[in-house]
Amino acid sequence: MNFNVSSELCYKAFSDSTLILNIHALRATNQMVTEEKIMIDPFIKLEEFSSNNQSTRFMRLEVKQGAVFKINYQATISTSYQFIDQYMAQANVEVGHLDANVIQYLFPSRYCQSDKLQRLAINQFGKIENVYLKVLAISDWIYNHVEYLSGSTDSQTSAFDTITERAGVCRDFAHLGIALCRALCIPARYFTGYAFQLVPQDFHACFEAYIGGNWILFDATRLVPLNGLVKIANGRDAADTAVASIFGSTVCTSVAVTCNVIGNDFIPFYYDNVNFNGISYQ
Amino acid sequence: MNFNVSSELCYKAFSDSTLILNIHALRATNQMVTEEKIMIDPFIKLEEFSSNNQSTRFMRLEVKQGAVFKINYQATISTSYQFIDQYMAQANVEVGHLDANVIQYLFPSRYCQSDKLQRLAINQFGKIENVYLKVLAISDWIYNHVEYLSGSTDSQTSAFDTITERAGVCRDFAHLGIALCRALCIPARYFTGYAFQLVPQDFHACFEAYIGGNWILFDATRLVPLNGLVKIANGRDAADTAVASIFGSTVCTSVAVTCNVIGNDFIPFYYDNVNFNGISYQ
Amino acid sequence: MNFNVSSELCYKAFSDSTLILNIHALRATNQMVTEEKIMIDPFIKLEEFSSNNQSTRFMRLEVKQGAVFKINYQATISTSYQFIDQYMAQANVEVGHLDANVIQYLFPSRYCQSDKLQRLAINQFGKIENVYLKVLAISDWIYNHVEYLSGSTDSQTSAFDTITERAGVCRDFAHLGIALCRALCIPARYFTGYAFQLVPQDFHACFEAYIGGNWILFDATRLVPLNGLVKIANGRDAADTAVASIFGSTVCTSVAVTCNVIGNDFIPFYYDNVNFNGISYQ
Amino acid sequence: MNFNVSSELCYKAFSDSTLILNIHALRATNQMVTEEKIMIDPFIKLEEFSSNNQSTRFMRLEVKQGAVFKINYQATISTSYQFIDQYMAQANVEVGHLDANVIQYLFPSRYCQSDKLQRLAINQFGKIENVYLKVLAISDWIYNHVEYLSGSTDSQTSAFDTITERAGVCRDFAHLGIALCRALCIPARYFTGYAFQLVPQDFHACFEAYIGGNWILFDATRLVPLNGLVKIANGRDAADTAVASIFGSTVCTSVAVTCNVIGNDFIPFYYDNVNFNGISYQ
Repeated sequence: MNFNVSSELCYKAFSDSTLILNIHALRATNQMVTEEKIMIDPFIKLEEFSSNNQSTRFMRLEVKQGAVFKINYQATISTSYQFIDQYMAQANVEVGHLDANVIQYLFPSRYCQSDKLQRLAINQFGKIENVYLKVLAISDWIYNHVEYLSGSTDSQTSAFDTITERAGVCRDFAHLGIALCRALCIPARYFTGYAFQLVPQDFHACFEAYIGGNWILFDATRLVPLNGLVKIANGRDAADTAVASIFGSTVCTSVAVTCNVIGNDFIPFYYDNVNFNGISYQ
Repeated sequence: MNFNVSSELCYKAFSDSTLILNIHALRATNQMVTEEKIMIDPFIKLEEFSSNNQSTRFMRLEVKQGAVFKINYQATISTSYQFIDQYMAQANVEVGHLDANVIQYLFPSRYCQSDKLQRLAINQFGKIENVYLKVLAISDWIYNHVEYLSGSTDSQTSAFDTITERAGVCRDFAHLGIALCRALCIPARYFTGYAFQLVPQDFHACFEAYIGGNWILFDATRLVPLNGLVKIANGRDAADTAVASIFGSTVCTSVAVTCNVIGNDFIPFYYDNVNFNGISYQ
Repeated sequence: MNFNVSSELCYKAFSDSTLILNIHALRATNQMVTEEKIMIDPFIKLEEFSSNNQSTRFMRLEVKQGAVFKINYQATISTSYQFIDQYMAQANVEVGHLDANVIQYLFPSRYCQSDKLQRLAINQFGKIENVYLKVLAISDWIYNHVEYLSGSTDSQTSAFDTITERAGVCRDFAHLGIALCRALCIPARYFTGYAFQLVPQDFHACFEAYIGGNWILFDATRLVPLNGLVKIANGRDAADTAVASIFGSTVCTSVAVTCNVIGNDFIPFYYDNVNFNGISYQ
Repeated sequence: MNFNVSSELCYKAFSDSTLILNIHALRATNQMVTEEKIMIDPFIKLEEFSSNNQSTRFMRLEVKQGAVFKINYQATISTSYQFIDQYMAQANVEVGHLDANVIQYLFPSRYCQSDKLQRLAINQFGKIENVYLKVLAISDWIYNHVEYLSGSTDSQTSAFDTITERAGVCRDFAHLGIALCRALCIPARYFTGYAFQLVPQDFHACFEAYIGGNWILFDATRLVPLNGLVKIANGRDAADTAVASIFGSTVCTSVAVTCNVIGNDFIPFYYDNVNFNGISYQ
């Protein structure tokens, strides 16, 4: 699947500041960035770097007090994904056989306090044997019990809040899904990206659970087709993958995002209760 | 400096379980493990592996329901450390020049919600220019305002609790130090290890702040000399470096730890207000 | 129904302290204290007083540093209660017609943060029309989803914790019941008392909801028959009705409680799904 | 002192709702309501009632879905207050001698979790002997360490949040002052009212501490003179004294408040470090 994506962020600096941005499409085995352009107006020198494990492409720029600037990113991306039959997935990878680089996704993190949700998770989902169905039940439960409500949460809201307050945005839905998975010993990680058919257009967040040796995608918001995503980053939660981490007093004045499929053969894919096909971008 | 360290943990398994333990002395440039022995009685096969960035040595073992077992670790370690003059350290590494693998230690984590402590940290410590003195002030403030009180906290206690409740153990002191550093844009990480002259003997935790391109050690508990430590692991916080992560229903029935210097030329080192020597194990 | 109740509390004072105790059986229209004896050994002068609205009988005593003393309370109580048919209770008292002294039980309190539970409560219980059945559903849900686990919580645990952590004692079960009722605009208050057939014997806590103009009793723990209670106090939550509020450094070294029915004609009463009889002590 | 006060609140009802409003000036020994007028446009029947202890005048009205209405309150008030020399106030009323109706203001409440702030309060303020100076130190500390920042908090923000997050509005300043007082065994209560010279004009909140048998007023915001207040209500915290408690889906679309002194002999009074005059409205 080929995509054109873009994002434009405007900032105003009230002090000398460093910005670490996370808006580039990730380069990965199943995701090729065929064309890419970044413009900063007026021009500011920027530096690109990756996190250790290549799951994030960071962009760092330093701005002077008083700077008013616009960052424009445009890219053409080619993604591929697999449908993986989850019928046999009850043969889950035991904690005892997980790869070392997957283990970290079992631990609690800033916004995903899985250590506090164990009884609830076991009580609610513990009896489902098939791991894929278990995570699907988590995702469905969130969809059915948490209200999608713009502006109801902020950057400090965590899964421990959302499980009770029952309102949030895509980020909160993802954090809760991750926390519940980890509470059940299922590795889970945050996925942030561009999303086709997201209304209104914006950055999107969902999550991946590690099932049968593959990272399977889940989106508790059901806002977009699962096969229309372009990955920006994976991380433990939004703390690792924030669109912008700002050190200094600089504020974002506007955000505009687009994500379009090239061609017209896109067939939206959602999970249903008939097939057991998990989608994996890896 | 040469050390003999040991730890002995006893467990009882009420269900089939996987344990991930984190008790090995780390192998690193400045820390050589010259001899090492692990015994599990009765014998259980174990697997060793490292986290991605070599900052943790994990040991994994799978146990059957009903198992009652003892893990005994003994090692001889040779450590070296540097004293680094912090007088010039106000020339701190700007966020704009941090190595990619240091950046992660700026972000909030499960037990170190630096995002919630920014105003407090700036208000309390923001005016101190020299970065070393700033972190020392944080460490001293914690020592002076938080009571060391065994049993006052549990595995869910975080920096956000401790800053207000004002009681905790070494783990809580370290989490609060880390959170306050990150809130001031100073990368900080958790340090867990064996500690000479810790009374009563136990695993210890403190923290490192990234100053002038070096990881400088701080211990807000002041319980042990700073030059008597043997590192087990670094991580974002205790979630990354727990002595034991247990998946299943297995309980620890006893812990015994020792840490002794070999030879009698040990001169305890603590920070004072005269010298500006930061200690770094890297 | 006639009861003999007793409680014996032992304390040790590490500083001059004031204790406010709340262990007397309440004097009320439906609860007569026919005989009552309080002994403090060694003798300390005490003062009795009531809260404004006569829903608590406090006892205050001042002790000197070093004091080691025992408070023994014994009483014979005659209680009566009504069974009130709740079938018609859907004709609930609207907020618009509540008595002024009931209104306070609609507001959130220290341990019952009803303001944070509204979406959850409406989502989970909002569709049940009959108010009695709604509260019964809340009580049943707590019984089925929260584990009764001694020692799992402390005096700072609140309904916001329990709804997620899913473990607690009678106090936590009551706080959660109250918070969910208030979140649905049903006035609810804390009930603390002596309880016949509680194993092991201790003070007990449950809650009352204001339905159809009566305070109907609910006990989400199901540990005791609903008709075997002797009321000590009503309040917004445990903050109002603590067994002991201690000002100074005095610690409780032992508690012993008894509650026995006089005679042998006691027929235990629990709610079932056949009758709609709510029990009210008023 | 004579005042003209007014408030105008506009609402839109999206469902049948009950509103409990708390905007009337209180009638009390030291505060006479000489003239008062309430208009609801279009007309809706309303009912007035007081809380049990006469510390709040509630107004209740029931509105139908679709109603768009305006509530206008105007009053002329005559207040008196005393200056009470606090020099001798170290002779504080011991908990052992407090009136029963004052005791409730020692307990933690929804927004004032004094039970969680004891170590901090004792550590920070415990050494100040004179009770008035102790509360003044609390009030000054809040003023110096918490940033007054409109929009930084919401109706769920409590003292436990504010002590760490260090930003808030008058309500948050008052809650923190109350919580710190209670943590030190000083009874404290919420005061909401109209305030002369408040810019921009709005309802105001501050707190009273019970010192030497009198309720002494403190305002950690320092936004208004202490002698320009007209009391609306006292309560444990904002849960008791909300301007509007809404049961149903009705939203406030605008608020306008005025408070003017009649005459031109007003001499603004603030605490200073020279006199020990506490102001008390009782």
